[in-house]
Amino acid sequence: MTYCIGMLLERGLVFMSDTRTNAGLDNIATVRKLRTWEVPGERVITLTTAGNLATTQAVVGLIDERTKAPESRNPTILDAPSMFQVAKEVGKTLRDVIRENVQGRSEASAPAFGATMIIGGQIKGKPPRLFLIYPEGNFIEASTDNSFFQIGETKYGKPILVRAFEPAMSFEMAIKLLLVSFDSTIKSNLSVGLPLDYQTYTTDTFASGRSGRIMGDEPYYRSVSDGWGEALKTAFAKLPEFTFLDS
Amino acid sequence: MTYCIGMLLERGLVFMSDTRTNAGLDNIATVRKLRTWEVPGERVITLTTAGNLATTQAVVGLIDERTKAPESRNPTILDAPSMFQVAKEVGKTLRDVIRENVQGRSEASAPAFGATMIIGGQIKGKPPRLFLIYPEGNFIEASTDNSFFQIGETKYGKPILVRAFEPAMSFEMAIKLLLVSFDSTIKSNLSVGLPLDYQTYTTDTFASGRSGRIMGDEPYYRSVSDGWGEALKTAFAKLPEFTFLDS
Repeated sequence: MTYCIGMLLERGLVFMSDTRTNAGLDNIATVRKLRTWEVPGERVITLTTAGNLATTQAVVGLIDERTKAPESRNPTILDAPSMFQVAKEVGKTLRDVIRENVQGRSEASAPAFGATMIIGGQIKGKPPRLFLIYPEGNFIEASTDNSFFQIGETKYGKPILVRAFEPAMSFEMAIKLLLVSFDSTIKSNLSVGLPLDYQTYTTDTFASGRSGRIMGDEPYYRSVSDGWGEALKTAFAKLPEFTFLDS
Repeated sequence: MTYCIGMLLERGLVFMSDTRTNAGLDNIATVRKLRTWEVPGERVITLTTAGNLATTQAVVGLIDERTKAPESRNPTILDAPSMFQVAKEVGKTLRDVIRENVQGRSEASAPAFGATMIIGGQIKGKPPRLFLIYPEGNFIEASTDNSFFQIGETKYGKPILVRAFEPAMSFEMAIKLLLVSFDSTIKSNLSVGLPLDYQTYTTDTFASGRSGRIMGDEPYYRSVSDGWGEALKTAFAKLPEFTFLDS
């Protein structure tokens, strides 16, 4: 499993992903699942991936190779005229990689090679856009009604996102929210693990924003993780008490 | 799906279950998934169920019939000498019902007929015990390290349980905690729905404790549901702010 989030904020985009990969409980490692491509002044595109690591690395590798050999016949995400076309190309690459792996096997094996991706960015002259790409290669777009996507182990960390997300929030606030959501997930699922990578993008800058890696022993992460446990207990204690009807 | 919780507290046992059942999104209904058997002064046993409704109703029906025809050769949960034997009998009945449905079909169809159960109670002369029964008929027991079980849609509501559960809590506090956990789940999964049934049991009373049904329009439920959203936002705002290292 994995956990990644992409958010469409009023001021831009923010992404966070964990770095744990595992092939069984006895075989875990750290890999980067967040990647940004940039044409300064023209476009910035960020991709996060969840699912079969061979599949996601193949997709990222193919996309990246094409950007470096623009004479080839394959379209590249650095030439695509819109973020919609970028999502379409990444979706097609993902579907092709999965099909190649399934070839000669039962269709039922497809999920084992599956992957899901969040891609977002901005191309000059157009607004920032954020998409969730399915293993079938099709995709959906974030909107003001549905401003963030989660992939991987999405359930533990969803309730706090639903309650505290605000499209107008600052990047600092967004990263704090992401850390709370990741912390709840990491506490419940061994296949999601620290460190956490993040990337921000400010609308109309056409330059990749702040990025970094948050380690588990960082004082800020510890203060959020420990502080959130305490804050939840305090919040819970403040809710009105239940009384039995017959008492 | 479904959501049920059973908790082993210092003062006894508490159970809560939702009441939604669905066969597709376009076919939903309300059913009771929580059942208590009582021999006043001697034993109290509570069962909650998640999974295929035909399976869980067949199991409850069989168990209940046997308690009313004690001359039959099948052991009944009202005769069993220990809660361990009660769990064993219910597990065997569950496995038998699933096997009967799978008969003549591929083994791969078993999960479709599957169900999971939480059973707990106390028999005179012994301490209260709580078990989680798997579709295979085997089971695990709650202990002081692992004092509650969830079945059905367990993920959304788990983080708050992990943070706020205390073995010494009162029944009132436990029901408040259960309501917060159920509310987070209900907000995220349409297959878990109100009203909610609860049942408590106080150690060494050998009489079923308080029970009731909490409706969605009840002022207390509304105050927990709305209050928790606000409390989370306040708790989140109080966490220390993130600052980018390079700022």
